[in-house]
Parts: sequence; structure tokens; C-alpha cells
Amino acid sequence: MPGGVTKWVYAFSEGSRDMRDLLGGKGANVADMTRLGLPVPPGFTITTAACMAFLGADRVLPDGLADQIDIHLAALEASAGKRLGDPSDPLLVSVRSGGRDSMPGMMDTILNLGLNDESVEGLATVTGNPRFAFDSYRRFIQMYGDVVCEVERHHFESALDALKAERGAQSDVDLGADDLRGLCDRFKAIFAEHRGEAFPQHPRAQLDGAVRAVFESWENRRAYDYRRHHGIPHDLGTAVNVQRMVFGNTGERSGTGVAFTRNNTTGEGGRPFGDFLMNAQGEDVVAGIRTPHPLEELKAILPDAFTELLDTMALLERTYGDMQDVEFTIEDGRLYMLQTRNGKRGALAMVRIACDLVDEGLVTEDDALARLIAPAQIPQLLLPQLDARGVRISGLVPLAMGVNASPGAATGAIVLTADEAERRGAAGEKVILVRDETTPDDLHGMIAAQGIVTARGGKTSHAAVVAVGMGCPAVCGVSALRFDGEAISIGGTVFAPGDIITIDGTGGGVYAGAAPVTDPDPRNPYLMRVLDWADRVRVLTVRTNADTPEDARRAREFGAEGIGLCRTEHMFFSDDRLPLVQAMILSEDDDERGRLLALLRPFQVDDFTGLFREMRGLPVTIRLLDPPLHEFLPGLLELSLQAAEDVRSGVRNPEVIAQLARAKDLHEVNPMLGTRGVRLGLEFPEILRMQAGAIMEAAVAVRDETGEAPLVEIMIPLVAYEEELHRARAIVVAEVELVLAMSEGPRVEYRVGTMIELPRAALTAGTIAREAEFFSFGTNDLTQTTLGFSRDDAEKGFLGMYLRENLLTSNPFETLDVDGVGRLIRIAAADARPIRPDIKLGICGEHGGDPASIEFCHGVGLDYVSCSPFRVQVARIAAGQAALRGAHGAAA
Amino acid sequence: MPGGVTKWVYAFSEGSRDMRDLLGGKGANVADMTRLGLPVPPGFTITTAACMAFLGADRVLPDGLADQIDIHLAALEASAGKRLGDPSDPLLVSVRSGGRDSMPGMMDTILNLGLNDESVEGLATVTGNPRFAFDSYRRFIQMYGDVVCEVERHHFESALDALKAERGAQSDVDLGADDLRGLCDRFKAIFAEHRGEAFPQHPRAQLDGAVRAVFESWENRRAYDYRRHHGIPHDLGTAVNVQRMVFGNTGERSGTGVAFTRNNTTGEGGRPFGDFLMNAQGEDVVAGIRTPHPLEELKAILPDAFTELLDTMALLERTYGDMQDVEFTIEDGRLYMLQTRNGKRGALAMVRIACDLVDEGLVTEDDALARLIAPAQIPQLLLPQLDARGVRISGLVPLAMGVNASPGAATGAIVLTADEAERRGAAGEKVILVRDETTPDDLHGMIAAQGIVTARGGKTSHAAVVAVGMGCPAVCGVSALRFDGEAISIGGTVFAPGDIITIDGTGGGVYAGAAPVTDPDPRNPYLMRVLDWADRVRVLTVRTNADTPEDARRAREFGAEGIGLCRTEHMFFSDDRLPLVQAMILSEDDDERGRLLALLRPFQVDDFTGLFREMRGLPVTIRLLDPPLHEFLPGLLELSLQAAEDVRSGVRNPEVIAQLARAKDLHEVNPMLGTRGVRLGLEFPEILRMQAGAIMEAAVAVRDETGEAPLVEIMIPLVAYEEELHRARAIVVAEVELVLAMSEGPRVEYRVGTMIELPRAALTAGTIAREAEFFSFGTNDLTQTTLGFSRDDAEKGFLGMYLRENLLTSNPFETLDVDGVGRLIRIAAADARPIRPDIKLGICGEHGGDPASIEFCHGVGLDYVSCSPFRVQVARIAAGQAALRGAHGAAA
Repeated sequence: MPGGVTKWVYAFSEGSRDMRDLLGGKGANVADMTRLGLPVPPGFTITTAACMAFLGADRVLPDGLADQIDIHLAALEASAGKRLGDPSDPLLVSVRSGGRDSMPGMMDTILNLGLNDESVEGLATVTGNPRFAFDSYRRFIQMYGDVVCEVERHHFESALDALKAERGAQSDVDLGADDLRGLCDRFKAIFAEHRGEAFPQHPRAQLDGAVRAVFESWENRRAYDYRRHHGIPHDLGTAVNVQRMVFGNTGERSGTGVAFTRNNTTGEGGRPFGDFLMNAQGEDVVAGIRTPHPLEELKAILPDAFTELLDTMALLERTYGDMQDVEFTIEDGRLYMLQTRNGKRGALAMVRIACDLVDEGLVTEDDALARLIAPAQIPQLLLPQLDARGVRISGLVPLAMGVNASPGAATGAIVLTADEAERRGAAGEKVILVRDETTPDDLHGMIAAQGIVTARGGKTSHAAVVAVGMGCPAVCGVSALRFDGEAISIGGTVFAPGDIITIDGTGGGVYAGAAPVTDPDPRNPYLMRVLDWADRVRVLTVRTNADTPEDARRAREFGAEGIGLCRTEHMFFSDDRLPLVQAMILSEDDDERGRLLALLRPFQVDDFTGLFREMRGLPVTIRLLDPPLHEFLPGLLELSLQAAEDVRSGVRNPEVIAQLARAKDLHEVNPMLGTRGVRLGLEFPEILRMQAGAIMEAAVAVRDETGEAPLVEIMIPLVAYEEELHRARAIVVAEVELVLAMSEGPRVEYRVGTMIELPRAALTAGTIAREAEFFSFGTNDLTQTTLGFSRDDAEKGFLGMYLRENLLTSNPFETLDVDGVGRLIRIAAADARPIRPDIKLGICGEHGGDPASIEFCHGVGLDYVSCSPFRVQVARIAAGQAALRGAHGAAA
Repeated sequence: MPGGVTKWVYAFSEGSRDMRDLLGGKGANVADMTRLGLPVPPGFTITTAACMAFLGADRVLPDGLADQIDIHLAALEASAGKRLGDPSDPLLVSVRSGGRDSMPGMMDTILNLGLNDESVEGLATVTGNPRFAFDSYRRFIQMYGDVVCEVERHHFESALDALKAERGAQSDVDLGADDLRGLCDRFKAIFAEHRGEAFPQHPRAQLDGAVRAVFESWENRRAYDYRRHHGIPHDLGTAVNVQRMVFGNTGERSGTGVAFTRNNTTGEGGRPFGDFLMNAQGEDVVAGIRTPHPLEELKAILPDAFTELLDTMALLERTYGDMQDVEFTIEDGRLYMLQTRNGKRGALAMVRIACDLVDEGLVTEDDALARLIAPAQIPQLLLPQLDARGVRISGLVPLAMGVNASPGAATGAIVLTADEAERRGAAGEKVILVRDETTPDDLHGMIAAQGIVTARGGKTSHAAVVAVGMGCPAVCGVSALRFDGEAISIGGTVFAPGDIITIDGTGGGVYAGAAPVTDPDPRNPYLMRVLDWADRVRVLTVRTNADTPEDARRAREFGAEGIGLCRTEHMFFSDDRLPLVQAMILSEDDDERGRLLALLRPFQVDDFTGLFREMRGLPVTIRLLDPPLHEFLPGLLELSLQAAEDVRSGVRNPEVIAQLARAKDLHEVNPMLGTRGVRLGLEFPEILRMQAGAIMEAAVAVRDETGEAPLVEIMIPLVAYEEELHRARAIVVAEVELVLAMSEGPRVEYRVGTMIELPRAALTAGTIAREAEFFSFGTNDLTQTTLGFSRDDAEKGFLGMYLRENLLTSNPFETLDVDGVGRLIRIAAADARPIRPDIKLGICGEHGGDPASIEFCHGVGLDYVSCSPFRVQVARIAAGQAALRGAHGAAA
């Protein structure tokens, strides 16, 4: 190569796995395998840099590239002893794309390049296998037509189907050489018809076309969307791998297959696991045209190749320190390795493989934790899951799909009301609660149900949030769910209450009847080991969001180190309390309000005592009352309808009239931005006093009962101004000290702090910190206000559209918006620490259980994350990984 | 004074006006007058530093203070030739508070200190005037009791009233010496009864008590609230002025009064203006116990004192370069000056005085602009105002008070519906539209009305915002307004439609009948000069928010240099368009939607043509459609009531059922955070295309008609993500270029930009700037989201409470929240400029017309502010003042 010219092309023997950026993942791994001396058909890789140069120069191939391809092609021809497209004995090549990151949606592959009307005859002659030659040629015409020339695949498939029908053939293999020769002619005609030109015959031109097509595929819409969705930069480009073809379709001593080095469902090792087809090319295995055979059957057919494959896979697993997913071809009894990559696996397999690889000495614990564990998959281990294999075998298909709102599978009888769910649940029946959408009024039914289905709402709908919190499977937003009086229809099938359905909250499907389900092992020993690795390295503390003793206990079992958020308003909605709460809010008389609050106080003391008992010795953050006012009040619509009805009937109901007037007074256009949190508390300071007093009474009671008090943290929500916190804090502290003054025994420690859940609070955190001993970032509401997205509305509206159309690549209510919300958190943390160096900083939105968001929290140097009980293990692992990735000191 | 001890006390002769921080405003000015050789009774000032030392040391007087007071008191006694409280011929002193800033609510004053049971007899003897002596003593006991010892004033006043009744006295002056002697005994008994101790007799102890009381008054609730409200720091402290008493109550050659150097209503100069009382002490003038005389009558009574007073006032005005408000006392024919300060004045007087002082050579134009003009008062000049003097004379009192939502006064007949307002208005009648609250549906009635009254809503309610925009007086949130069928009651008085009322939008009152009103002069020559001064120095451009040609024309007359915000949604609500818009939104068929939009397009072209014609040659920013979806749709409540009614009547109305279903689908819990702005535009790109096309068609038409196109700025609202703007911009640009390609003639320039009205947009302004040629900070919505305050709800709810209780010192929807919202603006400006150095930055919320907010905008270096037409002059002046204050380069 002339000096000064960029090296655009690398022979496989020149690359290595360190060159993924330049050669792509596939190219780097094939180079690795070549250097390991494994049986890889020779070839070369055109770099990602060449791709970007091509795209950046208006689709002109960069200087030197054509020459370098010629040189490497010549070397390939020399090593093979054949020339590309030689009419008498052609060298054929495959051309495959492959970027740094795996992008399955855009992996364009062209096999058998180099065939044309002449060389196909040469191939037939030299192999003595005309069927093979024409089978290869028809495949090439179809692939080249589809990938390079935009002649859609279905045109070719229809012609193949027509031919099979004509011949009465069950499968491709039932077609003979003449059939396939005729099919090639038909395919060329189809090509000419759609392109207005003949199928290209010149092999070097074929190769150029293929290279250009692969380069251009980097910018197609599908690839662009895929990258947006997976956060892959657009300026990487794809490499192109040109490799000598080997053929699995030359006859009965040939074949092709894919295999995992370990079982990808159970994680069991020592025995590879895969499928193969004899006399086939690679795409046949994946396409499911014929049913492939289990890998172990290869042993009987081609024992040498089988042994070599197993040895090779073991070597690859050792080399990469991870379970491998390989693609191989056997040509006339000889094994060739085409690809290797880290294999995808289920949660059970994931934890087991990580432990086994550590035990086998292939990786260290830290390495296993950092590389081999995807924390988002952990919750699958805690819940029954749909048995995918069982479903496939039984031929079940979902009635309808919805949003996979809360993972796990559940089977039960359809119930349409919360009361019915509670009644039948209490009688020991397993039920699935099916609702248009759920409200806090449905809570008792949701608790009683095995699973929840809603017609409306997404992952942050009421149903989804409550279900995730309870670890209850849920499928939400099933648009094909219709209510029709007492019956419902799901995807057009009609059901009556009591009919059995199964829901797959992990995948989002709803099935008729009882679908097969696998049981979880709550103390999976592999998981326990992985958690132990994470706990040893993580810096972040992991707390839980819990409102009940049951949640608190469960979370502590999962390893929660305290409660980061107890939402006290959930305690106000139960049947025995809501009337008192409503009367209190509606009362315009302070004395009456005080009397009602005095009735509520013992309930609250009980609530907190239960929580504190479970969490004794650990910190517990109690958020004072926060819901929008209207959640306490009878609905404006209902009252208006009632009043209209009264007028019509000539009834005069002063209570309805008064309630309607008050409801109109208190009605808010945007309750999310209305009288909530500290605003409500300053409007009704008696509520603050009641709650603060009840909290401390409970803490004292638990101290006296167990000898161990919790570390009480009283959190004042929705603060925008320091002065709000100053005033609310004074009220709270006065009441708490009153309780403490009346109790004997060691002082119960407490802190008063606030939620940072409004942009202004974050922007003025330096002053708010003067009044707050801790901050908890309420990222749910902070996301709503920072983005101007109402959760209640956005997910069923424009946010759904944004995600579908890839305008957003992740739901900001699931994964923290680092640029916007995250910047506010950085600002707040940076401004608060100089004012109060010992301030405790945590996060308690749903993001507290999201691995990417946890990594951000670690980077900002927060003290803890708090998440729902079922995400505690996820958070422990994600926190450990964040620590290993060394995302320290990223705070601004 | 011993070396090393702080100087806590200054004789009047030691101070000057540069020492306001230390001596307070009153002390500094009295010192000034002393140094000018004016007849000021001698005395000394105890510093604000002494106050803070006292308060910071748990109310212990700082070291050295008592000694220094003794020394200055001795000097005072020496100069007077009398000793404090001497039983035979006592020196008496006054003790007055006075901080750096005028704080009228807390100005505690104690007169006649030094009197006791003995010295009062001495005073009676030495003056030969026992009536004067006991009059002074009873005043002292009351003031000391009230200010120092918390014996409330009304106890004393009741006793005085009882005595007057007993004696049949009309006034204090009808009481004789013996009466007053007896009253002193009664007062002392009242004091002893409430304090449990005798009235203090020792003069030095009296002085100590008075000093402590003044110091402590700095921390009372009233003063604290006052400072919060006026933005005065809490750590300044108050000074204490101790001054030899002079007496206006020694007889018929004595008196006391207050005067302005110029007329404080008209601004007319050359003739002071004030009131006085003979034989009285200062508080009598203010208290209104007797009716004071106009100042000019003093000339006849005491010509020498009168002349000296006029000369003194002229000197003071020259000294301070501003109209002065003085307090004086005449003792036995001799004039004493007690206080001088800059006088408060109305808007007319303000502009005239500023010009006159410039013309008289007393101040420069810049100085006059910076110091003598309060821009917030300017709108008073543009509107009829309630004639306060006329109202007082005619004995009118308001029926009820509401929020002074839009300034100016208006008289007219009550109308209760917008249609009625339009009908009677068209007939030439003057009407006041009285509504519970207004909605966009009322717009035609609001335009026809002279004034608007609502029962609900504050300064940013729909009624207020629209009224301010139209320059129409409005009183909102009149809680004493009740609707009762066809009648209404206001503060208990019943009115029928057609009855005449007058509203005072400047003060907030509603009056029965036609109250006297003064007419404005739209081209007030003094105002024109002041505006000219401002225009010569200001850096900020001033644009207007205008949606109609009429608004645009008016604003241009007021000096607007373009349109900063045209809200196109207002164009969609008129009767001929709303049905088309509703049908378009409800349509689920793209073709139908396209057809309806094609019908709307000519309307929009007309709208924009009218605006562009008025603004030819100037920039015009058009915001594309932004309202929440629900504003276009029939109400959920109304539809539900209709549907319930239909069910009851057995009617089946498929249209109502379908509309209800669609309304439920589109119903949003928090419309403010829902499908608006760019979200709506991306959901229905046809709307973006229609608007963008109509805008450019209109611009081309105006170019062709007038030879001068506007500089078109197309603004895409509610952007949170760069990608939203990227996609919307592409749609807009394509349509605009299509129109341009079809037109001949010079290219019409246009820019595409966005509103920064969500925290995320500000936080990611660096990336958004890549797609935006300008930013307009939409501070109304930015305030809502940053603070989490829904305007619709907050002002009638918790925000009202916050302002009443001084938790907030200003309404963040009126004055920009600099710490929160302002910080976001700084961040956005700082991040955007490096990405796009020529980006235009402006503000278009209501804050664009608020002087404090304009100063902030100048400091951040924005290019322009945009405000309602009636605020354009305010903004010009405020921008000039900001430039003079040199708030340059404050951007982060």
C-alpha cells in the first residue's frame, strides 16, 4: 500500500478484538478466531472509517479503497486458488455488514456473491452438483436483489412458493436442479422487471454494489431508529466483511447451525446447546423453513466435526470469558466457524453462568458482575414467568398485546370490579382484575388479585405503578380490550366474568385459559452470590419505597437498608378513613377540623408503628401528605350529574348543593400543579401537626417495645421556596419536640428534610439546604415539571407517539432524563453541599430502580437510591456495577 | 470618647446624607438640614449598628452606648440650658425610629419624653401654660404606654372620649388645664392597671426604655412582614433619633404641619402644597381629629414663619434634587424643621416634576430618568382614572373590593353576558361586563365593554390578562359579588342589568353609579420627553405582544419596535372558525382534516396580512398553535350532562355519544402539561403546514402591496427536546419554501425559532440552539413549570394565601422569579450563545412589561422584551433605567 494513504481494509489475520471500533464486532471476532488458528474461511474487513468517508463524501468511495479491495481480493483468490466469479471454478464470497455494536435489525448479508450465468455452470461442473450450484445462485439473486437493489423479497418468495406448489414440493430440498435452474431464470426476470435492467453479471461490480449497499444501509431509517433507540452514536459507521463462502448446502455431509456454549435458559454448562440443518445455508436455520435438529444429533452424523466444534466453542468461551453464541458451517464434512458473539440468555441462565464462570476460574467476581449481569432481568427471578417453550409447544398465541407494565405471569378468573376481586380472592380463588383503568379506589381489589389488565394507561399508570410496587403482574393499555355490559372482549374473543385467562406481564400478552408458567425460586443461590459481589463493591445505599409493614418486611428480605419513601396519603384512602379526611378538608371550621384529625391520629400512629417495627435500627423517610386536593373530594362530574338529577326530580338536597359549591371552589384545572404537599400543609397546619406527632409517637412506641428506634426522617414535599420549608419545619419540629418532651427514655433521633421535585427547588437548593437535613430527589414529579409532561396524560397521548416514532429513545418516566432532570440534580447537589456538607442526598422516584438511572446517581455522588421492594435487588446490582465502572466524581 | 470603643451615637451636626446606612434616612436628612443651617431642634442619632448589636446580644445594650448617650444628652442639655426632666424647667425630647429605608408601618415615635409628675408642674410654671403642660403629659403617657409598654392605645382613647363626652367638648382644644390634669391621672391609672406597675418617673429610665423599644420594634412581626414585602434586608437595624422637643401646642402662635414642595397630584411647581393645624402636636394633623388648613392660610397668620418655610423648602428641593415632603413645627412663632424626605406623587405629577426639575437645572435628564420616574405608574397616564378627590368629596365608598387586575376607571351599565355586551356596545352604550369568570368565548363581549368585573380569578386570570392586553380596566376576584338569576349583588347591594356602576381597576374598588373620573392625555408632553430620555440610553429593544392589527397599530404608536409574540390560537376561537377547528381535531381522517384546514387557511392569511401591514419593516414573531387540546373541544361536563339527560328522556343521540367518547379519550387531567404546542403540531403536522404557509403567503402579499415585508419569525412553542424542534422545523421550512418558490420578487427573510418555556428547554438550550435562530423566553409557562404553580389554580388558591401571609413578597407571575426562573434564563443564554453567537434572545411573558423583570433581562443581555401594547412605554422607560443602572454583564 502506498505510504500516506489510509488503510481502509484489513485481512482477518491483521485484526483483533481491540479493534471493534474500526472493524466492527463481527470483524474483530472473526479476526480473533483467525489468530487463534480456528477454522475460519479467509477474508478481509473494510473499516467503519471507510463507511463514514463514503457517506461524508456524497457516496463516493474514498481514495485508495478500490485498490485496497483489489489487493485483498487478490490475496484471497491466491489463498483459495480460485478467482472471483471464474466461469470454470469460481471463488464465491459472502458480504456482511457489522458495526461496533450489534444491530440485528440492519445486519445485511449477501451470500454466494460471484455467481453469474457463467460461473454457476462452472460451479455445477466443478462440484458435480448442479442442484447445489443453482440453489446457491437463486439465493444470491434474491439476496442481492433485496439488499442491494431494493427488489423486495416477497416477489422472489412468491415465485418460489408457486414453483413448490407446482411441483407438489414440501420443502426447498424437494426441488431438483432443473427446478432451481428454472427458478433462477424466473428470479432474473423478476429482477429485470423491477429494476429495468438485467441482473448484474460482472463479479467485481457485484462486489462494489454490495459494499456500497452495506455502507448506505447505515443511514437507512430502520438503522437510524435502531441507533436512536439503543443510544448508539450515528457517526460510527459499519464495517463490511468479505469472506470466502463455504457451503452447507453441497450435500448430505454438509450443514449449518447455530449453538450456545451453555444452555441459555437454565445456564447449565458442560454441554453445548443448539440447532443445525444438513444440506442448508445459514439463513434456513433462522428462517424456520425446515425444523432444525438438536446439536447433539450431529455427533452421530459427523462425529469429527462435532468434536472439533465442541472444542472450538470451549476455547472461545475461555477466550471471551462469557457464554458464546456461534454460527458454523460444515462443508463436505469440514467445520468452519463463521461468527462468535456473547450469547443472549434468560435471567436464570444469567446468574448461573456468571457463578459457574467464576467457579471455573474463567472470570473474576468483579468482572462477572460488571460484564455478565443485566440487572433489568433480575425481577424475572422473583416471579412466575410464562414458559415460552411450553407456550410454543401448546400452540398458544396471545389474544391481544398491551404494555408489559409489571413483569411476571399469572392465571386466574376474570373479575371486573375491585369488590368482586376482594370477595373471590378472600374465598381463595385466583383472579385477574380487568378494568378500563384503575384508581386508588381499586386498591383492595388489586391487592386481592393475581394479576391486573387494563384497557388504558402505560407503564406509569396507576395500575402499573401499584402493580410493580406489589410485585403483581400487569398488562396495561390493552387497546383491543372492550367492555360490553357484563361481558368483555379481548382481541375480539368474548369472555364472561369467571372465565380463566393468563397474562404475561413480562411480554405484554394476554392468553385465553391457563397458559404454562414456570415457578420462581426466591432464594436462588446464584442470585444470592451475585448480590453478595455487588454489596461488596457498591457505594450507594439501597432503600425501598414502602407504605405498609408487609412491603417493608419484604423489602428488608430483599436487602433494603431503610425506607426512602413512605407515602402517607395511601394511608388516607381506606374506607374507614376517607370519610373523615373528606369531612376535614370540606370543613371550614378549625375546631371541627381539629376534632376530625384527632380521630385520624391513632390510625396514623398504628401505621407508622408497623413500619418502624419492621425497619427498627434503619432510617425511615416519611413523606407528609402530598396528593392533590381533588383526590380527597367527591368528583365534580358526579356531583354535577347528581345535582342536575335533583333539579329534574324537584328534589332539593342542600348537602349535594353545598358539596358541589365547595367542589367547584376547590376544583383545579391542573391538580398536578395545585394545592398539594407543603402548600396543603401550610393551608391546614393541623395536618402537619397531626402527622408529625403520630410519627414520633410511633417511633417512641417502637423504641420502648424493641429497644431500637428507627432513624426517623420527616420529609416535607413539593417545596419550591426556602420559606415554605422554614414555616412547615417549624410546625413539625414543635410538634415532634412536644411528643419527645412527654416521653422518657433515650431521645429518638430525627431529621427534617424535603423532596426536591420542582425545578425551582433544585435551582435554589443552596438556600433550601439551610432548612433541610436531607434531600430526596422526587424524580417522578421532577420529570413531570421539568419536561412539562403530565404522566397521567402523556403516556396515553403524545409520549406514546414520541416513543413509537423514535422521537424519544426511552421513556423519561422509566430512565432518568440525564440532560434535563439530571442536570437539575447535579446543580442541586453541587449547590447544597457547600452549605451543608453532611446533607444526605437520595432519590426516590421510580428511577431509583432503573439501572441506567442508578449509574447516574452514583456518578453524582448521591448517598442512596430508593425503589419498590421488587427492584431492591436490581438496585443493589446496578449500584455495584456503577461502582465498578468507576463513574466517580461525575458531579458538576 | 475612650479610644477603641465603637462610636454608637452621632450628634446631628456630625452626620450627613451619605450616612443613611448608619443613621437611617430620617437621621441622615436631619443631619443634612442641620449642616445646611436650617432651624432644626438639636439632637443626636443612635446608630443602626447599635440596634443590631443590641438585638444580636440577647437585648443587652452594647458596651459604651449608655456612656455615649449620657455624653450627647449632656451636650443637648447644655445647648438648651435645661436638664432632661428637671422638675423646675425640664428639657423634653422626642424619640423616633428610622431605618435606612422608609418603613411607615413601624415608625414608632414618642414625644414629650422627660415629663413626670414633678416636671409637668415645672413646665406648667415656667411656660405659664398649665393646659399645654398637661396636654403634653397626657400625650406622653399614652405614647409611652403604647409604644414602649404594650398598653394598647384604645384604652387611653376611650378615656379621652369619655372625658370629652362628660364635658360636652367637641374637640381636644375645648378641654381645659384641669380636665387634662385629671386625664393624666386617669391615664396613669390605666397604665398601672395593665402593667402592674406605676408609670416610670425617672427621665433617664424613660429614655432607656424608649431606645430599647425602638430597637426591639425592628423585630416585630409587622416590621418583619413589611421588610419581606418590600425586599428590605433584615440585618440593617433601625437608628434612634433623640431630639429636643419643640411644641406646636403652646398656644395660638404655635402650630404644626406637613407640606410638599410641589403639587403631588398635578406636579405644578412654584407653590408649596400642604396642611397645618394651630396649637397642635404633629400626630393631630395625620390623625384627622381636627380638619387642617391649607398651607397658604399660614401666610396670614404667621407671615414670617411662612416665608421662612417656603425658602427652606426651596432650598431642600435644590439640595435633594427632588420634590420634598417636609414636617415642621412652629413654636411661639418660630419655625422648626423636623423632617424632610422625597415626596410620593401620582403619575401626572411624576412626569411633570421630572421635566420641570430638568428645566430648572436642578437635575440632569439621566438623573431624572433614573431617580424620579417609577415606570409602574406610567399606565395611569393612558387611562381614565378614578378622581380620588372627587370621590372623597362626594362621599362615595366602594361597594366591594377585588383584585386591581387592569388599571383605569370605567363607568357603564351592568351586562351579564358577552352577547349582551356586544349588542348594547354596538348600539353605542357604555357597558361593564360582569361575569363569574371569563373564558375565550367571552372575548367579543370583553372587546365591546368599557370595563370588566369578575367574581373569581386574580391578576393572571383570563379576564385580567385579556383586559391588560386591551388596556381595558378590570377588577377581578370580587368575592362579594353574587349571581342570583337575572340580578346580582355586590357587597350586599342588589343590581339589575342596565344599572350603572363604576369600577376602579387601579385601586380595585367597585362603586354604585357614576363616580368621578379624570381623563387621560394620550400625548402627555412630559411623558413624551421622559420616553425620549429613555430611548436615548436603553439597550433593550421593546416589542409588543399583539394578535390583531388594532393592537399592533396601537403598540407601534406607543413605540413598539416589532411584535415579540402573536398568539395564533386566539384566531381560532371566533364563531366562524371554531366549528371548523373542532371538526378538524375530532376528525380521525387525514383527508377530512386536510380539507378543513384548507378552509381555515384563507382566514389565517388575512389575519397575518393585517398584522404584517401594520408592522412592515419590523420583526414579527408568530407563535404556532399552542392551546391545550381541550380548549378546542366541547366540555366533558356539558357532554356528560347532555348524555345523562338523553338517557333519561329515552333519546339516542349518536353524535353526543360519539363526541362524549372522543372527549373522554382526549380529556387530560393536567391540560397545562398535555398535548399542546409542538406536541399538537407533531400529532397533526397539517396544522403546522397550514400555519407556516399562511404566514409566508401573507408576508409575500404585504411585500407586494407595500414594498416592505416584515422580518418573519416563526416560533414553535413548548419544545422540550431538540428533536421535536428538528422535526417541526423541517415541516415548517418545507412549506415556507414552497410558498417562496411560487412567488416572484425579492426573497422574504424569515427565521425559525422556539419558545423556551419548559425547564428542560432551558437546561438543554445548548443543543436546542442548533435548531433555533431565536429563543423567546415564555416566562408565563416557564414560571408555571419551574415553580409547579398552575396559574389557573394558584392565584385563587395557595398563592393568594402565600402573598397574604407574606410567604412570598411578590407574585411570580408579575415579577420574574430571578432565583429560579431567572437562573434558567441565565443558563439558557449562556449555553446557547457559544453554539450560535448570533442567536436572538427575547422574553415574551407578562414579565416583559414589569420593570424589575426588565432590569433582569437587561442584566442577562437579552436583545428584546415584548409586552402588551399598554406596557410598551413602561418597558421603554424601565429599559432606559436598567441601562443607566449599568446592570451590564450580569449574565452567568
